[in-house]
Amino acid sequence: MSIVDVRSHSVRHCCDNLRVRSDAGPLVSREFLSAYISGYADGEGCFTVSISPRATLKVGWEVRPSFSVSQNGDRAEVLYALQAYFGCGSIRPDRSDKTLKWETRKLEELLGRVVPHFTRYPLLSAKQRDFERFALVCRLMADGEHRSRLGLIKIVSTVREMNPGGKRRYDADELLVTLNRDQR
Amino acid sequence: MSIVDVRSHSVRHCCDNLRVRSDAGPLVSREFLSAYISGYADGEGCFTVSISPRATLKVGWEVRPSFSVSQNGDRAEVLYALQAYFGCGSIRPDRSDKTLKWETRKLEELLGRVVPHFTRYPLLSAKQRDFERFALVCRLMADGEHRSRLGLIKIVSTVREMNPGGKRRYDADELLVTLNRDQR
Repeated sequence: MSIVDVRSHSVRHCCDNLRVRSDAGPLVSREFLSAYISGYADGEGCFTVSISPRATLKVGWEVRPSFSVSQNGDRAEVLYALQAYFGCGSIRPDRSDKTLKWETRKLEELLGRVVPHFTRYPLLSAKQRDFERFALVCRLMADGEHRSRLGLIKIVSTVREMNPGGKRRYDADELLVTLNRDQR
Repeated sequence: MSIVDVRSHSVRHCCDNLRVRSDAGPLVSREFLSAYISGYADGEGCFTVSISPRATLKVGWEVRPSFSVSQNGDRAEVLYALQAYFGCGSIRPDRSDKTLKWETRKLEELLGRVVPHFTRYPLLSAKQRDFERFALVCRLMADGEHRSRLGLIKIVSTVREMNPGGKRRYDADELLVTLNRDQR
């Protein structure tokens, strides 16, 4: 059984194993941590896909998926545990408030680490549906669909069903109208 | 292995086992749910002890511990899972915002169900220290310490170390001055 000291900030990630220096924190099994992280992410995690105009791209729009988890800076232990567990992502202050945020945006990390985790250890709230749409967008991007107008329509149609309460810079419905009208 | 359908709202609790009707939600093991709930509570849970004046009590003050977890109403599945898992508590709108809150305040439930859970499946952030102080207050109350001035001083001294960022109706330091001055 691999063990994890989740209050250690000096962590390293080796394949499917986490081992860290001893500290005041508890040692927990990886199975415990896997379920714990899903529970934590159910409350504090956010799957988002931003779509922004980008003139240099043939299709005119850039798709950027992101998975992030925020927490007050004085209780950031779990963010470091997330970084160690997934072996990727960065931790930095969230400009929107006084929290810290762990975030990963790289498609290969999202598809290789984040998506497999939440497929195996699913969220138990309706947020799982957001994750499933997010995972679909990542797979569509891996297939290069974000580089074509028709593929982008698939992606935007998926994104518009996500995070209905969240804020967006671009309205998905308007973007779909634009994409359906534009034949480039 | 007992299984749980966490998206079912028609749940029942039998000893250490949860079984519920089938629904769209996933079936998960109790070990998974135990770790998941600790992760969820690390983000969204709150251990509080309120201390209020109560003239009808000999010591003049009432101590009320509470464990609660809040969530947006549109993703309340985990609150129902918490209620089923712990077999206690009530779910109601939180007057302070637009969320729902699952909460238990009964000392026998806190000591018999909540404290054993977080002892066995600890929080991985600094919130665990709040839990440990909370558990100590519950044990002091079980010993009747809240009914004596000296016992109440022990309790308030513990509470003043909890949730430093939280709001309180009564300042613990001032209350300690009052209790140390008052000899009734």
